Amino acid sequence: MGLFESLPAEVSLYEVSLRDGLQNERATVILRDKLRLADALANAGLKRIELTSFVSPKWIPQLADADEVSRHVSRPPGVMWSALCPNARGLERARAVGIEEIAVFISASETHNLRNVNKSVAKTLEAFHEVIAPALASGLRVRGYVSTAWGCPYEGAIDPGSVVDVARSLLAQGCYQVSLGDTIGCGTPRQTRDLLALMFREFQVPQLALHMHDTRGTALANVLVGLEMGVRDFDSSVGGMGGCPYAPGAAGNLATEDLVYMLAGMGVGTGIDLEKIVEAGRVAESLVGRVLPGKVHQAGIRGLRA
Amino acid sequence: MGLFESLPAEVSLYEVSLRDGLQNERATVILRDKLRLADALANAGLKRIELTSFVSPKWIPQLADADEVSRHVSRPPGVMWSALCPNARGLERARAVGIEEIAVFISASETHNLRNVNKSVAKTLEAFHEVIAPALASGLRVRGYVSTAWGCPYEGAIDPGSVVDVARSLLAQGCYQVSLGDTIGCGTPRQTRDLLALMFREFQVPQLALHMHDTRGTALANVLVGLEMGVRDFDSSVGGMGGCPYAPGAAGNLATEDLVYMLAGMGVGTGIDLEKIVEAGRVAESLVGRVLPGKVHQAGIRGLRA
Repeated sequence: MGLFESLPAEVSLYEVSLRDGLQNERATVILRDKLRLADALANAGLKRIELTSFVSPKWIPQLADADEVSRHVSRPPGVMWSALCPNARGLERARAVGIEEIAVFISASETHNLRNVNKSVAKTLEAFHEVIAPALASGLRVRGYVSTAWGCPYEGAIDPGSVVDVARSLLAQGCYQVSLGDTIGCGTPRQTRDLLALMFREFQVPQLALHMHDTRGTALANVLVGLEMGVRDFDSSVGGMGGCPYAPGAAGNLATEDLVYMLAGMGVGTGIDLEKIVEAGRVAESLVGRVLPGKVHQAGIRGLRA
Repeated sequence: MGLFESLPAEVSLYEVSLRDGLQNERATVILRDKLRLADALANAGLKRIELTSFVSPKWIPQLADADEVSRHVSRPPGVMWSALCPNARGLERARAVGIEEIAVFISASETHNLRNVNKSVAKTLEAFHEVIAPALASGLRVRGYVSTAWGCPYEGAIDPGSVVDVARSLLAQGCYQVSLGDTIGCGTPRQTRDLLALMFREFQVPQLALHMHDTRGTALANVLVGLEMGVRDFDSSVGGMGGCPYAPGAAGNLATEDLVYMLAGMGVGTGIDLEKIVEAGRVAESLVGRVLPGKVHQAGIRGLRA
């Protein structure tokens, strides 16, 4: 068959629960509890963790403590804390508290981008020059998110060509990697194959990451396509925190423990301890006070065989 | 890449919510409501639907109305109603009420089988002679389930060789198809590839079906592997009804609407109307009175593109 003949020994996970997760949860999580979750994630073996977002507290009150959480978070060796920085003011704050990597966020969909940041895609890319160049100049790494890369809640289908265009611009400005987000979790495997085939015509493996949502149950199937096509970087959120809390148990972000479970069962290493990430999922659940949609933290890991 | 180069135009789904689903739900669903769900499923386009189980009402009180539900169910042309029949007495009852296909159930795990039916695997296979041969003699089709084919709650890992052995015996006795069940939802894609590779050394495509559980989020990823390796028959349960109700939102059976959504997004036909199966998922949810884990009936189908 040829299926899984070139599985990698290891892939790199990028944890988004503390930023993307918390900003989409209703619960207010206090500083001490955020630090507890941050410790649990680092302790489980995650090395790249998005900690917060340096936006105005008026926009995202859940992350109003960005400066404090950054100042107080533990700094175990080898763990890189990143933060979303939408503008120069955010970058300044991030630098002041020792953030090592920043992320910028844009949508492949004009309508979604307009509703999200009140600017066109072109204007947003232009404005990134005020963030990315100074960040690079002061030694920070910059990662780019391209959201709604599979589909948009307003526009429906998104032309893969426009995803490539936005990614090209981010990489040209100096992002070391672009993470493609299936923001509404509509992506199916053949579409993922086609999008990645187009991306890989132009970009290299380390330049691409997948940020899948499990809204319609297809997240791990899409990850599998990514793995087969050479993607080696995946975003996830412990417990499946964040996403669309339109219904109890409803899913948004792919849960880190579900991703690690599948990869471990395929012999693909992540450096993450499955027992500990399951435990971190339970910590996350206790903090937000709702049953989170991640499955392995509920079901346990019994039965796994690599 | 070669990925998805030989996707089929169509696959066949086998619906298990009314039997496997209901017998694992706590709610008592009355006859009229079962018939309502049966109608919704047939109306959505499902052609092969397991309706009930002819076991002693003492074992499975949820299915105590097997005779009545079979007598009263609508018989639209092209819809085949099947039923689980563990023994000759069950077969007799099924024949009396016009069931066209029966299913028998066995575990690949000795311990699981012993706990389930109080017999060894060998003795269970022997006892099937009293069901399968007479069923075939009276013109019924017989389907076999092999459960715990990926792993067992008592024994852990299951030797794929023993799955092949059990499947061989069922097919030799006259089952037209064997459905491999990932009963505890522990399967990961490489394991699925290896199991299927072993099965396909000996069996033909129409002889194999996959019955995946989404307990750990891997159901659709495993379906994808099956699709790539040539499987054309998949079991599912609308709403994801059944499985392990250990936690709110916890998943067991793969949800029919999630499966249809992914397949439709890949251009693989099922003959099932996505809108109608989503509606059937909502009907199922209203009958069992809990939020069912299926995702697409919660999230809706917005964003799908084939």
